[in-house]
Amino acid sequence: MESNVTLQETIESLLKNKKYASLRDILTTMNPVDVAGIFEAIQDEKMPVLYRLLPKDIAADAFVEMDEDTQQFLIQSLSDTELREVLDDMFLDDVVDMIEEMPANVVKRILRQSTNEDRKMINMLLKFPEDSAGSIMTTELVILRPDMTAQEAIKRIRRTGVDKETIYTCYVADNLSKLTGIVTIKDLILAEDDTKVKDIMDPNVISVNTYTDQEEVAEIIQRYDFLALPVVDTENRLVGIVTVDDAVDVMQDEATEDIQKMAAITPNTDKPYLKIGIFDTWKSRIPWLLLLMISATFTGMIISSFENALATSVVLTAFIPMLMDTGGNSGSQASVTVIRAISLNELNFKDLIKVIWKEIRVAVLCGISLAAAAFLKVLLVDKILLGNNEVTYGVAFVVCLTLALTVLVAKIIGCSLPMFAYKLGFDPAVMASPFITTIVDAVSLVVYFVIATNILNI
Amino acid sequence: MESNVTLQETIESLLKNKKYASLRDILTTMNPVDVAGIFEAIQDEKMPVLYRLLPKDIAADAFVEMDEDTQQFLIQSLSDTELREVLDDMFLDDVVDMIEEMPANVVKRILRQSTNEDRKMINMLLKFPEDSAGSIMTTELVILRPDMTAQEAIKRIRRTGVDKETIYTCYVADNLSKLTGIVTIKDLILAEDDTKVKDIMDPNVISVNTYTDQEEVAEIIQRYDFLALPVVDTENRLVGIVTVDDAVDVMQDEATEDIQKMAAITPNTDKPYLKIGIFDTWKSRIPWLLLLMISATFTGMIISSFENALATSVVLTAFIPMLMDTGGNSGSQASVTVIRAISLNELNFKDLIKVIWKEIRVAVLCGISLAAAAFLKVLLVDKILLGNNEVTYGVAFVVCLTLALTVLVAKIIGCSLPMFAYKLGFDPAVMASPFITTIVDAVSLVVYFVIATNILNI
Repeated sequence: MESNVTLQETIESLLKNKKYASLRDILTTMNPVDVAGIFEAIQDEKMPVLYRLLPKDIAADAFVEMDEDTQQFLIQSLSDTELREVLDDMFLDDVVDMIEEMPANVVKRILRQSTNEDRKMINMLLKFPEDSAGSIMTTELVILRPDMTAQEAIKRIRRTGVDKETIYTCYVADNLSKLTGIVTIKDLILAEDDTKVKDIMDPNVISVNTYTDQEEVAEIIQRYDFLALPVVDTENRLVGIVTVDDAVDVMQDEATEDIQKMAAITPNTDKPYLKIGIFDTWKSRIPWLLLLMISATFTGMIISSFENALATSVVLTAFIPMLMDTGGNSGSQASVTVIRAISLNELNFKDLIKVIWKEIRVAVLCGISLAAAAFLKVLLVDKILLGNNEVTYGVAFVVCLTLALTVLVAKIIGCSLPMFAYKLGFDPAVMASPFITTIVDAVSLVVYFVIATNILNI
Repeated sequence: MESNVTLQETIESLLKNKKYASLRDILTTMNPVDVAGIFEAIQDEKMPVLYRLLPKDIAADAFVEMDEDTQQFLIQSLSDTELREVLDDMFLDDVVDMIEEMPANVVKRILRQSTNEDRKMINMLLKFPEDSAGSIMTTELVILRPDMTAQEAIKRIRRTGVDKETIYTCYVADNLSKLTGIVTIKDLILAEDDTKVKDIMDPNVISVNTYTDQEEVAEIIQRYDFLALPVVDTENRLVGIVTVDDAVDVMQDEATEDIQKMAAITPNTDKPYLKIGIFDTWKSRIPWLLLLMISATFTGMIISSFENALATSVVLTAFIPMLMDTGGNSGSQASVTVIRAISLNELNFKDLIKVIWKEIRVAVLCGISLAAAAFLKVLLVDKILLGNNEVTYGVAFVVCLTLALTVLVAKIIGCSLPMFAYKLGFDPAVMASPFITTIVDAVSLVVYFVIATNILNI
């Protein structure tokens, strides 16, 4: 992050000159996120010294924000007591996130330094499937009883709240741990002291199951503007909450995954771009490249089968890239728009007809505009300006008719394939540009050659 | 949203049969967001009846969540008194958002029903540039003084908090309204009653200016896991806050815009897909289609200039789609990955060399794999299986060499163009698939024909 550049240099030079008091003063004023950024950028061997300068309350918060390599290096250089202090200050869901990325020996050491209770909880959390609500929830939350008064509730929050990840929304559960309502700190503070929790709580709680997909969790938090969403087990017992900051990270990751899939990349969002190895990058890119290359040979076969037509009228070849590219672009526009709308829950399979009808009308508008522009261009530039005699009115007409038809077909294929993929339970994002392009290429060539052979009599 | 389908029908049939008591009971249990969904789906003329059945506290919240068409229809059917009640319950930033989408006569009516003070504030908010922090901030926030005690602070929040959009984070300002610190409700509740605010507040406040771009605002909120971010004017006076729910919406919109730009669409995120008119959709798609079509003719000109070579060896034409597509896909993968990394602040222009060096190594791996696969495929399928005698070892070699070189060039162009665009202040997202494809098409053809004419002596 650019803004840290000079600060980074200052800190490094202070560290070199052992100005520890000044360093501590600087670090105290910094946000833990920025402290983490400093650690990620300095040399490994300087980390332990700098880390020991951090005020205790910043140390754990900064540690959570560091990337896994930095965390791993630091853990290996901390004493058991220091490690225990960090772990004590961390929220359990953050510990679990960290453990998932660490090698076995580091995990063992972390678990050895955790309390029995924490270790049990960590092991429980580790068992949830990777992208589930259970895997991103925190189990540290304030639970209130329905017949507490507002004052008692606030007292309870005071007594137990320091360790809890968020106390802004409190959950009300009966004696069997069944979730019965939610109440915000705002409601509690604004209520009269002796009001009962059950009278100010909202009994209509929206919750998810531990196995709910994290993408759905994030979508619900966004739709309802929640700060946190309760997670219940199969018996409707409250087991945790997902907070909005984790939901935001899920949303960004999901958007990145969609973008990668649309560009024919197997999603790879665990690490930032520069930290992903060459071989891993290759692995996430080569499968689709191979598949699409093989599919493109069908397009080649279409050209081969019209070889004679092309041999007699080579000028037709010159328009192939323009037709294929425009078709591909038209199809991509439709498919990407539809894929994003499905992701944002704006579209459902039952909208299929509406979507196709809309795309047909847009395609007619686009097709006519493009064909008109192409006709002028072919005649003015290719025929008159460049004086290419092979470009006849017939050729111009064939090119423009193909163009308009290709755009129409491309938009219809582009908008409907993601809808069908969604309906069949596949990821619509896979039906984006590269896939559509390959299909549209083949279609546009067939249309082109059929029209050409018939109109130009070749 | 699928889950509402049956509820929707129930509500419509209750409405038809005038079962108003039951309707009110159902609506009371619903989240305002879902209530808004019901309104968007029922017929216009039924809206006013249903709206008047809503409990007052749900009415305003549901109104905010409705799309603009529904809001506009409702406003026109509400009496002045009813409209005033709704406006009183709405937060000012929501009123401003709504006003921005309404026709002039509706805006006039809304402003007429607002209090003098609100009208002044609304006019101030309307003046900020569209994508600025000022345009998405709320001006309703709790401001504390540094020498209040925790108890006094909580009392003040109680007295003034009901109207404030969020009271979870409170801002501390001195007598000149200068922002001097922040303190969370959590800190206040967990503190001893007579602790001074200035002793528990965090004086290191991260804030933005009213003119800061909303994308940066969202990025800061995500990076630091904030629930709200203070906005100051040019004299560092606190004028508002941006809350996390608004930041989340900005993030989703920005991701959608990036995705649209990557697919050669002029961004259009104001409305959901099906609500955007045909003509508007056409307008957002045609400029790039035209531009890319015209650029694709350069590719055509390259083919024309090698017309003689193609006429003597027509088999070469059959491999053009495969080479162009694979080049385009390889380039897209690199460009999209880099564009997303820039969006997520993972990359900076100073990483250019690292990025290019990484892509070169990935390209070598991809190029070798693809060339090997293509060589086998050309010999086994095209030559032996399909018995095409024109496919010689020489042709296979030319195709595979072109393929490997094209992948290399495509990856280098794909990763560096977005970096240069970013450096020059353009939007890197524009340098995505369609643009890269057009360039890579031309490059791959030149490489192909140069290699072919030299090796095959044509």
